[in-house]
Amino acid sequence: MAIQKKIRLGIIGIGNMGSEHCRMVLGGKCRETELCAVADLRPERREWARRSLPESVSVFADGRELIASGTCEAVLVAVPHFQHEPLTVAALDAGLHVLCEKPAAVQAERAEKMIQAAEKAGKTLRFMFNQRNNCTYRTIKGLLAGGEIGALKRMNWIITDWYRTQRYYDSGSWRATWAGEGGGVLLNQCPHQLDLLIWLCGMPCAVTARCLEGKWHHIEVEDDVTAFLEFPNGATGVFVASTGDLPGTNRLELDCERGKIVCEDGQVKVWRLRVNEREVCFKSDDPWYREEPEPFLLETDGENPQHAGVINAFAAHLLRNEPLTAEAEDGLRALELSNAIHLSGWTGKRVEIPVSREAFDRELARRTANSRIRTGADVTYETDHSAGGSRKEETP
Amino acid sequence: MAIQKKIRLGIIGIGNMGSEHCRMVLGGKCRETELCAVADLRPERREWARRSLPESVSVFADGRELIASGTCEAVLVAVPHFQHEPLTVAALDAGLHVLCEKPAAVQAERAEKMIQAAEKAGKTLRFMFNQRNNCTYRTIKGLLAGGEIGALKRMNWIITDWYRTQRYYDSGSWRATWAGEGGGVLLNQCPHQLDLLIWLCGMPCAVTARCLEGKWHHIEVEDDVTAFLEFPNGATGVFVASTGDLPGTNRLELDCERGKIVCEDGQVKVWRLRVNEREVCFKSDDPWYREEPEPFLLETDGENPQHAGVINAFAAHLLRNEPLTAEAEDGLRALELSNAIHLSGWTGKRVEIPVSREAFDRELARRTANSRIRTGADVTYETDHSAGGSRKEETP
Repeated sequence: MAIQKKIRLGIIGIGNMGSEHCRMVLGGKCRETELCAVADLRPERREWARRSLPESVSVFADGRELIASGTCEAVLVAVPHFQHEPLTVAALDAGLHVLCEKPAAVQAERAEKMIQAAEKAGKTLRFMFNQRNNCTYRTIKGLLAGGEIGALKRMNWIITDWYRTQRYYDSGSWRATWAGEGGGVLLNQCPHQLDLLIWLCGMPCAVTARCLEGKWHHIEVEDDVTAFLEFPNGATGVFVASTGDLPGTNRLELDCERGKIVCEDGQVKVWRLRVNEREVCFKSDDPWYREEPEPFLLETDGENPQHAGVINAFAAHLLRNEPLTAEAEDGLRALELSNAIHLSGWTGKRVEIPVSREAFDRELARRTANSRIRTGADVTYETDHSAGGSRKEETP
Repeated sequence: MAIQKKIRLGIIGIGNMGSEHCRMVLGGKCRETELCAVADLRPERREWARRSLPESVSVFADGRELIASGTCEAVLVAVPHFQHEPLTVAALDAGLHVLCEKPAAVQAERAEKMIQAAEKAGKTLRFMFNQRNNCTYRTIKGLLAGGEIGALKRMNWIITDWYRTQRYYDSGSWRATWAGEGGGVLLNQCPHQLDLLIWLCGMPCAVTARCLEGKWHHIEVEDDVTAFLEFPNGATGVFVASTGDLPGTNRLELDCERGKIVCEDGQVKVWRLRVNEREVCFKSDDPWYREEPEPFLLETDGENPQHAGVINAFAAHLLRNEPLTAEAEDGLRALELSNAIHLSGWTGKRVEIPVSREAFDRELARRTANSRIRTGADVTYETDHSAGGSRKEETP
């Protein structure tokens, strides 16, 4: 048997997410990936790494040191959002491949720079859209792509099961500040749903949104969002997200010309019409035409390899050029939509996509300039990020 | 046994709804009401009345003749929306009590005039909010009023099971025109839900809405509405309505400080928290606090007397001063919210409640001036209006 080749991976940023990724790679779920190095600016996190990780894993203070060290051929970037772009570009410029945590960046313009750097370097750049591995969304994607449900007419996603207490926001001085994080529920919790929304429904062309800042918590960024979306084909949508609802809801409804899909509580119900509604509307003699087919439950393969799936696909791509579910541009798209919702919320106006880079930067800069930096030590939690916002255990 | 006194009722307008009311009163469901007269401007509807109703029922061409005839002590007004106010005021001025179909009028200002006329005459004015009789909404109202679920934080109503084909809109020359009806799904299909929304959640103080006109049909008024609502206590809401979705959805979610209520498919699920979320948010040491109680199904009495219930309550009020579920002012409130959604949709701006009467009239007048009057004979259908938008049978 040939010796299996492995990707030599470095993880930059070993806070909540990065340390979870360390455990995952070391735990045997990523058999084509070898953890060779980690980096973190915080001495206590490096101390954790030296104490908890194998001796073979090099520990660096600065991500740039890790990049320059020659210990890795790829890096996973898991630092605060504003640092995604500079570290990703540095790694690509140094000839490394990059898997970057979501969101791609805070400003769409930065994501564009990351993509340009990858093209220039001829290296692979991808973002951690692990929810695309979720059997539920994969199966819906397959149903829509098959065409039997017809074109989208309306979508409605209530994704409010991201409950967080004030303690969560107080756990990091950067959290939920304009200067430290650049946004709230849109940037921290929702990038997955925004990516899935675009993946399933296509890219909206305009947004009218209300972003409520500090609605449920003592924070300066938005923790409650309602957005009205317009799609190029005339379909419309509503997207509602919050970290203040208990118990929250995760319900996605897709109304199409030949049926309806509702995904809630991990189940996907499908109503399939015998007819195309757009034809019935103008051909039927019945003013109150009704067709209410019994919904059926969409079967899935039950697989949800999550982050490990993304890392394994990333490694398979580097090793054998296997295809990836998401492109680098998908990171930009999700951020573009996020930026549009923010900008509409800030200005109170309808915003067309692509978003004006200047307008977004100007509005964000105003908020960053007045941002309150909070005091208090950062806390790293041992978390299970595999499902929604829930967690298994927490280290004091 | 004393001879039971009955209210002598006239029905003005015997089209789709009015003829249904005739059958209902004559069918024995309204034992304290006697149908004494009907009126309709259309000869073919008067012909229908002479052919189908008992000889004891007087038939008039004009509602004002009916009012002046002395045959009735109360009238049920079931004519096109713009005629609600003049006929209601004429009846009240003549000393009759009035039960008026929804919506109260097209402009909130007209509803105010109706209420003033009732006060001046010292007579009873009520509107046909038969959905308040629905056991589902009655039981939710009881739960909310009991206080155990706490204050509202968010509401979300997707009410898109009002499917109509083009044939529906073509069945009356007044239908779905600004000049003839004054609005679309908001005025024709949604007054019940707007009333229930206010009854359950309280009156919003501001609205930001998108009203899509002729989105799914060849009509000039709105057939697709998405509204973002703000309530005085800081709660927010989303209201989505359409006559273009097949199969549609009727799902009401109420998120409160101590639990969640979801009403869909005729079932009411309740999640009751052990704690008040607003306290947990600031007191819990757990950043990812979770409480996901098993939902229970809310039991109802199963009763839904609908229109007959409203008419019986109206009669009982006139005969024995028994209390009514809705006040005359409730008709104004539902219309006020409807006007606010329209005005926000027309102007693209956030609209505060109460709505500027001048601004609404100006915008409506612009649309009425350019309204297309359609040709084609009006058709009256034999319908079952008791549940959502479905129907039992239809006369060719």
